Amino acid sequence: MAVSVETLSSFHQHLTAFKEICGENFVCTDVESLNNYAHDETENLHFLPDIVLKPRTAGEISRIMKICNEHLIPVTPRGAGTGLSGGALPHKGGVLISFERMNDIIEIDERNLQVTVEPGVITEVLQNAVKEKGLFYPPDPSSRGSCFIGGNIAENSGGPKAVKYGVVKDYVLNLELVLPNGDIIWTGANVLKNSTGYNLTQLLVGSEGTLGLVTKIVLKLIPLPKFDLLMLVPFNDLQKAGAAVSAIFRAGFTPSALELVEINALKIVSKFVDSTVVPVTDDMEAHLIIELDGNHQETLMAEMENISTLLEEYDCGELFFADDAQQKAELWKLRRRVAEAVKLAGYTIEEDTVVPRAELPALIKGVKQLGKEYNFDVVCYGHAGDGNLHIRIRKPGSIYSLNNAEVIPALKALFNLVKSLGGTISGEHGIGLIQKEYMDIVFDEPGMQLMKGIKRIFDPNNILNSGKIFDL
Amino acid sequence: MAVSVETLSSFHQHLTAFKEICGENFVCTDVESLNNYAHDETENLHFLPDIVLKPRTAGEISRIMKICNEHLIPVTPRGAGTGLSGGALPHKGGVLISFERMNDIIEIDERNLQVTVEPGVITEVLQNAVKEKGLFYPPDPSSRGSCFIGGNIAENSGGPKAVKYGVVKDYVLNLELVLPNGDIIWTGANVLKNSTGYNLTQLLVGSEGTLGLVTKIVLKLIPLPKFDLLMLVPFNDLQKAGAAVSAIFRAGFTPSALELVEINALKIVSKFVDSTVVPVTDDMEAHLIIELDGNHQETLMAEMENISTLLEEYDCGELFFADDAQQKAELWKLRRRVAEAVKLAGYTIEEDTVVPRAELPALIKGVKQLGKEYNFDVVCYGHAGDGNLHIRIRKPGSIYSLNNAEVIPALKALFNLVKSLGGTISGEHGIGLIQKEYMDIVFDEPGMQLMKGIKRIFDPNNILNSGKIFDL
Repeated sequence: MAVSVETLSSFHQHLTAFKEICGENFVCTDVESLNNYAHDETENLHFLPDIVLKPRTAGEISRIMKICNEHLIPVTPRGAGTGLSGGALPHKGGVLISFERMNDIIEIDERNLQVTVEPGVITEVLQNAVKEKGLFYPPDPSSRGSCFIGGNIAENSGGPKAVKYGVVKDYVLNLELVLPNGDIIWTGANVLKNSTGYNLTQLLVGSEGTLGLVTKIVLKLIPLPKFDLLMLVPFNDLQKAGAAVSAIFRAGFTPSALELVEINALKIVSKFVDSTVVPVTDDMEAHLIIELDGNHQETLMAEMENISTLLEEYDCGELFFADDAQQKAELWKLRRRVAEAVKLAGYTIEEDTVVPRAELPALIKGVKQLGKEYNFDVVCYGHAGDGNLHIRIRKPGSIYSLNNAEVIPALKALFNLVKSLGGTISGEHGIGLIQKEYMDIVFDEPGMQLMKGIKRIFDPNNILNSGKIFDL
Repeated sequence: MAVSVETLSSFHQHLTAFKEICGENFVCTDVESLNNYAHDETENLHFLPDIVLKPRTAGEISRIMKICNEHLIPVTPRGAGTGLSGGALPHKGGVLISFERMNDIIEIDERNLQVTVEPGVITEVLQNAVKEKGLFYPPDPSSRGSCFIGGNIAENSGGPKAVKYGVVKDYVLNLELVLPNGDIIWTGANVLKNSTGYNLTQLLVGSEGTLGLVTKIVLKLIPLPKFDLLMLVPFNDLQKAGAAVSAIFRAGFTPSALELVEINALKIVSKFVDSTVVPVTDDMEAHLIIELDGNHQETLMAEMENISTLLEEYDCGELFFADDAQQKAELWKLRRRVAEAVKLAGYTIEEDTVVPRAELPALIKGVKQLGKEYNFDVVCYGHAGDGNLHIRIRKPGSIYSLNNAEVIPALKALFNLVKSLGGTISGEHGIGLIQKEYMDIVFDEPGMQLMKGIKRIFDPNNILNSGKIFDL
């Protein structure tokens, strides 16, 4: 359903109502404030909302949604704005709902190993709070120091630990949700197993804020592992580094992180954070970062040794063990800041491809070939243990992929390659605004129609984050 | 949408077409054959289909569905008929599609730790096949020796290992699906992380055959743990046994199984299988079965000792360690056959409640109280580590719960108790036919309307397993 121009231009009549609902101080219409909510970390895109609301409760959001639904006002939900697919960009103007004030950790339930939080809690704040109780919430996107848990739910975020511990969807037990018509529901129950009706909880995770506004989240926690070991392994052959990843799992090991960073990316980030912790020589092509965790230090040491021996078969270089917490932190800092560093170096377009783990070498090889064919520079890094490879593209004159005639054919070729390898176009960033043109590469028309039908059931007026994932 | 009587009574006109599609030998209309498909393991219910079809391929099912969709013929998909909520019962007559011939393990992908199977593969056959390659598919419902993997997908089955390894939903990567209109789609991709559109895969798991017919399944596998230890622990206080369960996890242990069996159930099953392996004394009220697994035997021994010490605080009796594979097998046989044994002993009505783990003592206490109040005998057993308690009810004169005026008020009281403890009405058996009257206890009307809306998107004519989970 199209939103009429009259509706859009006149929705300021609802300002009084919004101020009554949220409080005067939590309604912004000045351009400076609006500008703060016009972008995220996706390429160089910029869309101004007409108004920013900062509600505090599900009840307030419910009242806002009733107004917007009645008057067909576009609504964009927004977490911390760290997204990488444009999911939080208000590209249709209208109301932007920021969750920044809904940031309480409501209850850490130590008896049941669960936590109930509001969506505006920063992921790392949540992790640290449960860690103090000896508990562990593993999903840790690179942006964990600033991203909101609500955004993580929207995008089904992953991060390095996913390879052993799973992604956000594996920890979400129950969600409180405001529907586009203002109704408030819980999607499930606070239980570890649930076969009671359709799995609305799992349908919501990764739905990118298009089906409802999550206002409370119940997460499963697990006991915090006592020890971890971290090792950096250089390879002089990118293909062999990729092959080694698959071999580690086939040998029966399950690292708590298994990351790959191509040498160009490592050079850029080392310079960016002014670090010399990782030795770089001319013959290196990539590094693997391998972490093991568990409750028995000797067991971990033995396993790491066995992995080291295995890696020799793949012509790895000299292993570098992180000796202490500081070295581990420095290595992780390097890894976490790769995206930021290479973006500043001109690799503005980031893809989030994922393939079956053993297809990584084929993907890396294919990407390099495509770079030559379509004339772009490329660096690869990411969660190799999951087959989730981030591909950063630098093409002179192009700073975004959205509607960019220079870039689109190259991305189509890339995603067709990914599809042919049994993979798909997003592992953890979501489709949002920038990948939706490519959905038909991985979904046939009947599948797309099912998704659009589901969207219409939740949001008949198509007001909530409309035009993300697909156009109706 | 109602199915007209004319349509129902005249669908035999399509017999020729069905025989052409499936082959003469794979279309049954004789009463003896139909009777074989009229029941499952749910209480004592019996509904005859009009016709049984045994297709071999997704293409055949697609052609069947096009006919049934056009002529509004009810279709019931059926696995091995081991269900416990009536999901596979053809209560509206019409066509029953049996998956018994679609039983190929298509590929065990050792490079990617994945397996692609057809839905008619017996769960244990699948487990053994991947075990031969050193791989592990953990979900293991008690019926694993006969149930089909397709039925496990439909009900989101669990089993004892779920406490450490998760349930079926945690292993399903991708599904090939025939939609009610005959379209064939894949729901996702063969990858470990996926943020590409709505999670149709997770929506399908546990949807009880109401949204589509699963024809191929891609499952994640993990390395097979090398060792396991099994211990049986008696308690003279059922409440304390329940409390001990929660304490084990809070102390940082994650057993690979943590089962509770009430003493009455243990006596019944011991007699049923003629076993004396478990010593039973008059002062016992329940046993916990605790399994640990991993790759390091000494570590497991040390952990089991620590757990034993912890359990002493809960006044446990003398621990019984299973010494060898044979003793382990006998203990597990006892556990797996509890449901069958107590059903034969007159406890025909089984509930599948699930609560947050630490609420188990409150649930057990409440159930016993309800038994007195509503005059029924009750035995409890199940996957205590998950908070998933099976409750078997024996009420003189009552052999089923469906529309049973004697039983319904008692179950309503039980489910209200479960809800008040943060739980829900099915952990792993599904809602099917027998629990649908209670859905409004755990879901508000807007949530129910969302589910019904989703059903209509997938199945506008309401022909596929209609009247399961809810009535439209």
